[in-house]
Amino acid sequence: MRQAGRYLPQYREVRGKTTFLGLCKTPELAAEVTVQPVDLIGVDAAILFSDILIPVEAMGMRVEFHENEGPVLPEPIRNQADIERLAIFDPSERTPFTLEAIRQTVRALDRRVPLIGFAGAPFTLAAYMLEGRGSKSWLGVKRLMATEPRLAHELFGKIASAIGQYLVAQIEAGCDAVQIFDSWGGELGPADFERWTLPYVQRIVADVKAKAPHVPVIFFGTGMSTLLPKLKDTGADVLGLDWRIELKDARKILGDDVAVQGNLDPTALFLPKEEITRRVEEIISQNAGRPGHIFNLGHGITPPTDPDHARHLVNEVHRLGARKA
Amino acid sequence: MRQAGRYLPQYREVRGKTTFLGLCKTPELAAEVTVQPVDLIGVDAAILFSDILIPVEAMGMRVEFHENEGPVLPEPIRNQADIERLAIFDPSERTPFTLEAIRQTVRALDRRVPLIGFAGAPFTLAAYMLEGRGSKSWLGVKRLMATEPRLAHELFGKIASAIGQYLVAQIEAGCDAVQIFDSWGGELGPADFERWTLPYVQRIVADVKAKAPHVPVIFFGTGMSTLLPKLKDTGADVLGLDWRIELKDARKILGDDVAVQGNLDPTALFLPKEEITRRVEEIISQNAGRPGHIFNLGHGITPPTDPDHARHLVNEVHRLGARKA
Repeated sequence: MRQAGRYLPQYREVRGKTTFLGLCKTPELAAEVTVQPVDLIGVDAAILFSDILIPVEAMGMRVEFHENEGPVLPEPIRNQADIERLAIFDPSERTPFTLEAIRQTVRALDRRVPLIGFAGAPFTLAAYMLEGRGSKSWLGVKRLMATEPRLAHELFGKIASAIGQYLVAQIEAGCDAVQIFDSWGGELGPADFERWTLPYVQRIVADVKAKAPHVPVIFFGTGMSTLLPKLKDTGADVLGLDWRIELKDARKILGDDVAVQGNLDPTALFLPKEEITRRVEEIISQNAGRPGHIFNLGHGITPPTDPDHARHLVNEVHRLGARKA
Repeated sequence: MRQAGRYLPQYREVRGKTTFLGLCKTPELAAEVTVQPVDLIGVDAAILFSDILIPVEAMGMRVEFHENEGPVLPEPIRNQADIERLAIFDPSERTPFTLEAIRQTVRALDRRVPLIGFAGAPFTLAAYMLEGRGSKSWLGVKRLMATEPRLAHELFGKIASAIGQYLVAQIEAGCDAVQIFDSWGGELGPADFERWTLPYVQRIVADVKAKAPHVPVIFFGTGMSTLLPKLKDTGADVLGLDWRIELKDARKILGDDVAVQGNLDPTALFLPKEEITRRVEEIISQNAGRPGHIFNLGHGITPPTDPDHARHLVNEVHRLGARKA
């Protein structure tokens, strides 16, 4: 999850200099806010500041971010021609700012902590591409999947190829690990997951592994806890868990041959520090010393979070014995 | 889930005569729209037209519905005095319109199909009471639960008592079954569920069973599939399933001693009729002839749904062999 953000006054200061998209596309500023949580909060890894829709724009679609609103794609996909027009882009040509932000971040981090790159999963990106904006039901993509499966597979395939290349380019620019986010993946039932999410995430993981076999791939989707047994089949090295499942139950389902990341309810950061400590203890004790647990929130950090509480969380995770990621 | 709604032109016609709250509180109109899906779509049960915040208003809070917006509680709970002021109300005094709507609906249905009453679950109602409006994180109630557990238990207990009485009154007025909706219940992790949802839903079920032991109680929460083993402990006779779990897997977890309701993805109604048929077949085949399956959507019907597709769904469920609910 994005670590830098509105909860940090230092982020708001940098953000005030430009637009959201401007921040994503100005390497020195993106690198600056990427490093902030490492310096200010003490986290054990930095997460590249960017947006999952950057590669969607690079594929050829218009993407806008209006203030205090979600993203808007004013010309969503309407027909086959729109899909055919999408480019499996060359990251060094269409997203040089991302790669430069990574290089500058790596320099700024100076090997203190690893840098995690990321991209959105095909279903989530296709959902925005068809809908043109946020939605509760994501009807556009679901309708395409059910009524024009051939076209939908063409779209998902193109996205997967583009994302695979994009993540490889992030690694070549210096990322130590990459994360695939399926923000809306939990909107699909198990059968649709197997048909529309699994093969395309597998393809992305395979593309990354073909070029960088030792770089860990993390997969995270919200509301996908019922799909855990199938998530292992993605081939990801690490599975992100939201807080709707107990870590011990997830471990029981997954076994020990995949690492897990999670899973504190982000709203816990609004509680008194003693309560945060209690919850950290609980999660660590549920992991019961098994290797391969990356302590993390179960979803993104909520904007009004007090940075001091985020710092307390990190300190307590360190104190209570979790290893460095 | 509410069956009557904007997808029906006949509903929009009645709705045009008044406000949303006006519709909930005018028995003849509420009864009219409650019966509409029975006449127009052919469903096997009617669901009372009302809103989960009606009893919140009856407890003494201001509740407003602005057009094209979610509900707003302009004076959310701020302190202990606000909680102490809440009334465990007498339904015949504070919600006579609901009871009269039930009586009129029962007359209009003339025993053709049963009538299902409903109410919100304590967590969901408390979430609105603290937040004052819809939210992604429901921080208000989560903060109260973690920092002032005694106060939170007082609030949840009051809500449970009020809802228990309210559902009993609905049954006395003529409802054949009642449903408890935990719209936001899936926002809680398993530990919070056990502490804050389970005991209060159990209390409501017990209150209903004490007065009406043979009236079925249905419990439904969105995004709670990971909690299925614990949902059985609510004591509800029927558990509603969303579409994030396969019916066969849910059956495996739950066993056959609790009935299930579900679980077609509501967006399936936007697909061609043959595809709807295919999905109905799939769900029915997953139930594998076990008793106690009420075919239903896995969540509310989406407003732009074509009534003709909803009718097709009901016809196909009947044709493909599901019994009357």
